[in-house]
Amino acid sequence: MLDRIKLTDLQSKVMTAEESANFFEDGMTVGSSGFTRGGDSKVVLKAVAERAKSENLKITLVTGASLGHGTDAALVESGALKKRLPFQVDTVMRKNINAGNVLFIDQHLGETAEHILDGQFKINLGVLEVAEILEDGSLVPTTSVGNNAVIAANADKLIIEINTAIPTNIKGIHDIYSVEEYGKRTAVNITECDTLIGTETIKVDPSKIIAIVFHDITDAPGDIQPADDATAAIAQNIVSFFENEVEEGRLTKSLMPLQCGIGKVANAVLGGLEHSDFEDLVMYSEVLQDSTFDLIDSGKMKFASASSMTVSQECYDRVIGNIDSYKGKIVLRPQAISNSAEVIRRLGIIGINTSLECDIYGNVNSTHVSGTHMMNGIGGSGDFARNAYISIFVTASVAKNGNISSIVPMVSHVDHTEHDVDIIVTEQGLADLRGLAPRERAIEIINNCVHPDYKAELLSYFERACAERGGQTPHILEEAFSWHSRLREKGSMKKEELLMVN
Amino acid sequence: MLDRIKLTDLQSKVMTAEESANFFEDGMTVGSSGFTRGGDSKVVLKAVAERAKSENLKITLVTGASLGHGTDAALVESGALKKRLPFQVDTVMRKNINAGNVLFIDQHLGETAEHILDGQFKINLGVLEVAEILEDGSLVPTTSVGNNAVIAANADKLIIEINTAIPTNIKGIHDIYSVEEYGKRTAVNITECDTLIGTETIKVDPSKIIAIVFHDITDAPGDIQPADDATAAIAQNIVSFFENEVEEGRLTKSLMPLQCGIGKVANAVLGGLEHSDFEDLVMYSEVLQDSTFDLIDSGKMKFASASSMTVSQECYDRVIGNIDSYKGKIVLRPQAISNSAEVIRRLGIIGINTSLECDIYGNVNSTHVSGTHMMNGIGGSGDFARNAYISIFVTASVAKNGNISSIVPMVSHVDHTEHDVDIIVTEQGLADLRGLAPRERAIEIINNCVHPDYKAELLSYFERACAERGGQTPHILEEAFSWHSRLREKGSMKKEELLMVN
Ligand SMILES: CC(C)(COP(=O)(O)OP(=O)(O)OC[C@H]1O[C@@H](n2cnc3c(N)ncnc32)[C@H](O)[C@@H]1OP(=O)(O)O)[C@@H](O)C(=O)NCCC(=O)NCCS
Ligand SMILES: CC(C)(COP(=O)(O)OP(=O)(O)OC[C@H]1O[C@@H](n2cnc3c(N)ncnc32)[C@H](O)[C@@H]1OP(=O)(O)O)[C@@H](O)C(=O)NCCC(=O)NCCS
Repeated sequence: MLDRIKLTDLQSKVMTAEESANFFEDGMTVGSSGFTRGGDSKVVLKAVAERAKSENLKITLVTGASLGHGTDAALVESGALKKRLPFQVDTVMRKNINAGNVLFIDQHLGETAEHILDGQFKINLGVLEVAEILEDGSLVPTTSVGNNAVIAANADKLIIEINTAIPTNIKGIHDIYSVEEYGKRTAVNITECDTLIGTETIKVDPSKIIAIVFHDITDAPGDIQPADDATAAIAQNIVSFFENEVEEGRLTKSLMPLQCGIGKVANAVLGGLEHSDFEDLVMYSEVLQDSTFDLIDSGKMKFASASSMTVSQECYDRVIGNIDSYKGKIVLRPQAISNSAEVIRRLGIIGINTSLECDIYGNVNSTHVSGTHMMNGIGGSGDFARNAYISIFVTASVAKNGNISSIVPMVSHVDHTEHDVDIIVTEQGLADLRGLAPRERAIEIINNCVHPDYKAELLSYFERACAERGGQTPHILEEAFSWHSRLREKGSMKKEELLMVN
Repeated sequence: MLDRIKLTDLQSKVMTAEESANFFEDGMTVGSSGFTRGGDSKVVLKAVAERAKSENLKITLVTGASLGHGTDAALVESGALKKRLPFQVDTVMRKNINAGNVLFIDQHLGETAEHILDGQFKINLGVLEVAEILEDGSLVPTTSVGNNAVIAANADKLIIEINTAIPTNIKGIHDIYSVEEYGKRTAVNITECDTLIGTETIKVDPSKIIAIVFHDITDAPGDIQPADDATAAIAQNIVSFFENEVEEGRLTKSLMPLQCGIGKVANAVLGGLEHSDFEDLVMYSEVLQDSTFDLIDSGKMKFASASSMTVSQECYDRVIGNIDSYKGKIVLRPQAISNSAEVIRRLGIIGINTSLECDIYGNVNSTHVSGTHMMNGIGGSGDFARNAYISIFVTASVAKNGNISSIVPMVSHVDHTEHDVDIIVTEQGLADLRGLAPRERAIEIINNCVHPDYKAELLSYFERACAERGGQTPHILEEAFSWHSRLREKGSMKKEELLMVN
């Protein structure tokens, strides 16, 4: 175990998680590793939650993205969290955010590092999971990079968790690069998905390391749901769209670098590509999922870049157990780089993200149920949607047994404006909004994407809005959220007549 | 005159505007020069409008931004426009867009070139104002660059307007650079405002030039309104904010590169800097205005980069008459570069843009009056707001004699989401939203920015939304647009009691 601390001076810093938790003070801002369950703090933050049960200890917690192992829930339940950013997916935390008990900053994942650099969040303490500490004190990350490098560089003090479940030969799958301070910044010089611009490890001032904690806990496995009918139809619609773009000469058989949000649709789309004519695919995304590794293993995908891996236990064992064989095929980068505006624009990415609801003009809500209640957060969807070559949003046309239409007159919250949305896909079909003005988009979306139960009413709304109010983006403001109000009052967006029938 | 066509073979292409108008065909997509009145087509598009009066001739028109000399109005009135993008400011056109007579695509100005490159808009005919055609056929632009380079490269045919009112020694103030096709793209390697990465002229295949038309019409002067009390107070609030940032060590006396939207507030802010302690300022913006040249002439500003200049007649004469003395102090670039996401992020820009309305959570509407009717368009505000180091939005707290509050419960259209808005400023004060969660932002905005007439009601809305509905972003959806409805019905957002009093 101790041989994982090659800078032997630091071996004296080894302690238990409980001991390390004593370094936390009320009011601190803490930065930790962890991105969609990959490479998160497994024991130190849990010990902090324990401490907070009996003490007044409230922190602001900045991570890469979501954590696994119920850590966010444990912190919330013990009252240890004042503020949380930039993303979460935890049921308990979600409830407490929406109740106003925890302040949540929903942030473009590519920008969190900027806000650490510019001093909006001064990191008092960093908690980073690593595979090993090398002779010069530099850190070998594990299954995610997230904001680890900017935390390591900017935190006053660091607590290191060494995860012995991760083999040390994971060294070599990371590419660590941080932007310089303003005035000295140069381009983030990635010109292909596999361009490496950084170092294999995270440089750190070893004197900042105040504690080292060992554990051997693997990442909480991703919970991949099998494709249902709607998901499979959405995936098929996207694959057909790609095939048509190839036919029209706008894409080649290797498409463009792919970005996929996490979840079953993304997995189904990538799965669909496996049984297709496409070849030599590459990925420049946030998270590597099972489907990514399946494409790599089957030879369909040449290279995949992301900030983290979130996979099933089976896939985890396959990849981590054979990590050397994936070198040169995958890379994990800081999220400021995986989600870098300039790289996304330069590479010409096809971005596929999921929305909660879209409106008839192509605005997208990815975060707020009924405009008020946080689901997860915007994540990286904005980083990609804004700068993608083609920005695709997917959603089933209805949710909650058909009682919610995912296409509404006006979205109750906007995460992605009409400017940043090229294609909307449901199981009903695909709306290609490229080159269309708002009134043209409305017809395309209503015709192709809306569930039959809601189509007539949506068309009627649009037609009345044009006739009665007009404008570039016709709306009847008093009615724009009437579907949401109906849902709130009657439990369904459906009109009474339809409710009687169904 | 003819000596402005150095490639003598092309001299045979000289003709009148009316003759050149015959090259236009119904259904064509036309790309033209022109960016906020600078360097626009002065005679050819007007001749097209004439032709369309007696013929069925409808085109899609893609420009840099807005045109001067009533050209947009002339085109609309003669029925020559089917579709228009990416920006406009014309009263007649606005009316016709909102009536559904002209389809308008409101587009991030930095992205139009991408949509030409990716084939969304295939340019059949380009109309470009130039100062001169050189020996190799390359074009010397005039007072804007806009989308000229991408139009020159991608149009099937080109019509050139040579403006003899512009001295040929304007050559040298432009820096022409276009991104490569995907797969071959490299970084847009600007690391300082004054980095030059391109050529002085626009390369073009001379065989594409089918007509050359001479004129000597200067740009329509910018209409700069003097600062009123509200504007002066907004400017003062921003200057004080900068002073405080310097005091806190987050900015230096040369600030960061400035971007300012056009209009009186922007002019007032820059004017405010002239009588301040700031020094060695630089600008990386879209448009150079009078205030920019005043700062340069007084020695306060070292360098300014933009895509166009839009100034008063006095300033125009001063600059164009002494253009050599401004070389090395200003540069005009393609709008894909002036508004490039990567350059804006890399340079760390302070972006100052104007909103129509903001809401209590920091979402901004820059374009749609009451959510439906287009004002001008998003312009470059999104390009800058998303990637700026500090993104500032300004607005008077009320409009239309106090009958409209510019801070509302929920914006009726979203151009800039809460993620992309750092600071909101009205004449009442400044709300610094950095590092705040939505509920914290609401308090900051209501306390600092709202007009007294609307403050109590807005606070009541927020408190009731928190108590009755809760959530990350508390809203009472049925009430969210009630202020807009009241305005529509009663001509004022004010409550009846207040209307009686005032
Ligand atoms: C939008 C998002 C929540 C969709 O999640 P998903 O798991 O793919 O999709 P689902 O259809 O299963 O929907 C998730 C839940 O939202 C509900 N839902 C979907 N649409 C809804 C709507 N319009 N209104 C209310 N609830 C809705 C579903 O019923 C489901 O509820 P359940 O968990 O109680 O079953 C998710 O993709 C997300 O958080 N996106 C933002 C972050 C992001 O895009 N990151 C990209 C890079 S990783
Ligand atoms: C938002 C924008 C329209 C404000 O324009 P401005 O001239 O600076 O500001 P003004 O306060 O004079 O407002 C312009 C008009 O809108 C009206 N207005 C302002 N706020 C309003 C509101 N909330 N609702 C309705 N009308 C409103 C004003 O009364 C005024 O009307 P008038 O022309 O009939 O007098 C303008 O800045 C714009 O088009 N911005 C988007 C493009 C952009 O930001 N580009 C940036 C780079 S150039």
